[in-house]
Amino acid sequence: MRKLAIYPGSFDPATNGHIDVIGRAARIFDELIVGVAKQSPKSTTFTVDERVNLLHESCFEFKNVKIESFDNLLVDWAFQKKAGVIVRGLRALSDFEYEFQMALTNRKLNKEIETVFLMTREDCSCISSSMIKEIAKLGGNVNNFVPKNVAEALIKKYGL
Amino acid sequence: MRKLAIYPGSFDPATNGHIDVIGRAARIFDELIVGVAKQSPKSTTFTVDERVNLLHESCFEFKNVKIESFDNLLVDWAFQKKAGVIVRGLRALSDFEYEFQMALTNRKLNKEIETVFLMTREDCSCISSSMIKEIAKLGGNVNNFVPKNVAEALIKKYGL
Amino acid sequence: MRKLAIYPGSFDPATNGHIDVIGRAARIFDELIVGVAKQSPKSTTFTVDERVNLLHESCFEFKNVKIESFDNLLVDWAFQKKAGVIVRGLRALSDFEYEFQMALTNRKLNKEIETVFLMTREDCSCISSSMIKEIAKLGGNVNNFVPKNVAEALIKKYGL
Amino acid sequence: MRKLAIYPGSFDPATNGHIDVIGRAARIFDELIVGVAKQSPKSTTFTVDERVNLLHESCFEFKNVKIESFDNLLVDWAFQKKAGVIVRGLRALSDFEYEFQMALTNRKLNKEIETVFLMTREDCSCISSSMIKEIAKLGGNVNNFVPKNVAEALIKKYGL
Amino acid sequence: MRKLAIYPGSFDPATNGHIDVIGRAARIFDELIVGVAKQSPKSTTFTVDERVNLLHESCFEFKNVKIESFDNLLVDWAFQKKAGVIVRGLRALSDFEYEFQMALTNRKLNKEIETVFLMTREDCSCISSSMIKEIAKLGGNVNNFVPKNVAEALIKKYGL
Amino acid sequence: MRKLAIYPGSFDPATNGHIDVIGRAARIFDELIVGVAKQSPKSTTFTVDERVNLLHESCFEFKNVKIESFDNLLVDWAFQKKAGVIVRGLRALSDFEYEFQMALTNRKLNKEIETVFLMTREDCSCISSSMIKEIAKLGGNVNNFVPKNVAEALIKKYGL
Repeated sequence: MRKLAIYPGSFDPATNGHIDVIGRAARIFDELIVGVAKQSPKSTTFTVDERVNLLHESCFEFKNVKIESFDNLLVDWAFQKKAGVIVRGLRALSDFEYEFQMALTNRKLNKEIETVFLMTREDCSCISSSMIKEIAKLGGNVNNFVPKNVAEALIKKYGL
Repeated sequence: MRKLAIYPGSFDPATNGHIDVIGRAARIFDELIVGVAKQSPKSTTFTVDERVNLLHESCFEFKNVKIESFDNLLVDWAFQKKAGVIVRGLRALSDFEYEFQMALTNRKLNKEIETVFLMTREDCSCISSSMIKEIAKLGGNVNNFVPKNVAEALIKKYGL
Repeated sequence: MRKLAIYPGSFDPATNGHIDVIGRAARIFDELIVGVAKQSPKSTTFTVDERVNLLHESCFEFKNVKIESFDNLLVDWAFQKKAGVIVRGLRALSDFEYEFQMALTNRKLNKEIETVFLMTREDCSCISSSMIKEIAKLGGNVNNFVPKNVAEALIKKYGL
Repeated sequence: MRKLAIYPGSFDPATNGHIDVIGRAARIFDELIVGVAKQSPKSTTFTVDERVNLLHESCFEFKNVKIESFDNLLVDWAFQKKAGVIVRGLRALSDFEYEFQMALTNRKLNKEIETVFLMTREDCSCISSSMIKEIAKLGGNVNNFVPKNVAEALIKKYGL
Repeated sequence: MRKLAIYPGSFDPATNGHIDVIGRAARIFDELIVGVAKQSPKSTTFTVDERVNLLHESCFEFKNVKIESFDNLLVDWAFQKKAGVIVRGLRALSDFEYEFQMALTNRKLNKEIETVFLMTREDCSCISSSMIKEIAKLGGNVNNFVPKNVAEALIKKYGL
Repeated sequence: MRKLAIYPGSFDPATNGHIDVIGRAARIFDELIVGVAKQSPKSTTFTVDERVNLLHESCFEFKNVKIESFDNLLVDWAFQKKAGVIVRGLRALSDFEYEFQMALTNRKLNKEIETVFLMTREDCSCISSSMIKEIAKLGGNVNNFVPKNVAEALIKKYGL
């Protein structure tokens, strides 16, 4: 049976840490759909279309990966997609508790869908989208933290 | 000597986790006052009156529990009420550090008032008011997370 | 391509938490080998054969699960078995840091093998083999924490 | 109704942190029994009688506190004593997860008995019995960490 | 070789915990520059000038300490100042993970600059600028948490 | 004024993480003494002399670093050496709480001596002496985790 997994997030914007998790999940599962959330508790810096496009460009080498956006409840979208697995990356320094809380909540909402955690690459453990935006805003070099196309998009966005 | 405790929070809205803590505290102390904070660092989804009313309905079975609102400093209100104990729920996944910080601060402000932590029921450990509102906003079913009247209030609030 | 995963541990003895993780992993992967470690930093209460047998009995319903023991380095054993994935359970209250450290070490030893974390069922989050043995030793009832055959083995072991 | 609580531990030996928790619990509950565990996963430095005596001497000023030892399962002993509450101290730097795990386990073993956590005094947050013994063994001054009689017992024990 | 360190922050406003860290760093390094960030993810209560002035008044006794503001990337500012060390305070209850993430990021941006962590005084471990503002806003007494001049500035700011 | 720091530990054996911290501390302070503890709560795999020698060989390139052993209380030894600073490495995955507890205790024992924490290199964050010994014992390759001479000593020790 083919195993389909989804990897949801806001990806505002995608970082090397995200791309690392996508590569790992693409090796474990037969098919992976990266899901860009339209709805977000915080306002985003990039539009949904921009975020989807940046991921498209960064993931072209992964043949079994698709990028989509969604605006309903995560477990409902997973169910529509017939995905049995939600993938989340864990950084040594990530908000483990938040991830766990969300995963338990999702299990309560649909117990057929399993959340699976992968470890992000060590040298990505300090990377978060918001910290990268702080750095870019102050003119810092973000080439070590994000794919090339995202670095360019950040420079353009902040008019540097 | 009768022991009076208060259980403060924003309760925006009350969850099964809150009701669980209220039930436990009501068994330990002679009298419990649930204190709904009028002042809050974040803006609230429900008004103070709505939050007090939802708690009233959910707690009617606890005979030694009263619901009140307050808008001064927590330890000052506790002192007015002659309460020697502040009750807080701890979830396995809660922000333990935040709770501890607040409790130490309160002890510094009035060392006669003791903060007491109770463990929330295991299956409530992933529940937070904000996560529940996220789910309700996206049309998810929150019946497993909040009392019946709160679920109805959420549906009404988000016009679902 | 068939996906083969291994779930290593000392299982001294297997708990409901372990069985829960086995069930979840058996649904995600095509085949799962539960690996009972012969070598252990601490001395064990049950022999390797006893630990393997208890797991056999508890897992008979999972058709794609095999129980084996191993005494070499985990990543070397995974490589021999042609397993690309190591499964570990995470409890809300587990030693997250220890698990992460071990997973990073294993990645350094063999970067082809990915560690995947699954969340244990909420009501198993307080269960550890050592705490269960403490309870059994003092005559406590462990029926809510371990499979029936393990409970019987504990009673026999401690001569209660 | 009179509220009876128990405060269990190995107290090997009692520290200022323990005495601080005893004082706080004695103000909250009508009666407090400090329970010295005879059974312990680790071997102890002081005998049960020594540990009970050191506590007796340190707690003489608390009129509603009794010191006893026990050798059965904690919840069974609490039940015998008709205590509805188990008290545990939480240090900012304590093993919160371990305490939570034990409390959840005890709730599973007897759901009538509630665990209540109190915050230890800030300047006791670095004190543990084992660290104090390490210091005393190397001739360090432990007067700031333990009651006077315990300091003397440590000096005698290590023949300094 | 003279050792120059910088201690960056938003200091909105400075607390006893900040002053404690400044005093410790001033003893370890030959010269210390306290850097008040002009740019901040959140809007500040006090202006940059007010924050710099409050620090000036509170630190007059430290002869090798200077107060400055900066509005570029932290590591770039450190480089301009020829500082090889960034000082950060760690509270027992502080956001250790956030600090670590920031320090790793800074190391990636300039590996010549080392972050050094000092422990804040125990009785400051519950103090944060935002909690102090909450208390002051509700008329609470903040004299135990901040220097005298800051307490006065808070009273003036909130018109109490 | 020359700044002298000590970096204490059991170094059983030294790892790349330890050498990384030594290098960082040697750049910050004028002189660094690495202190190998003779007394240890656990029995060690290598003798004090072996541990000192392995460090000597690994640190020959650091001109301002000396290796010594000590068997008294850490703060007493620091005082004898006229060192005002104790250096400790923090790994993203290290036991932060244990380090903090020890540092607070040392401050209580001698408030003139400051503990300073440095961040270990990211790719060392999973390395601990005990995990390395586990791997070596099972014939695993530890070349990525320890200096060359330590790897050889481990092979010799375990007769591989």
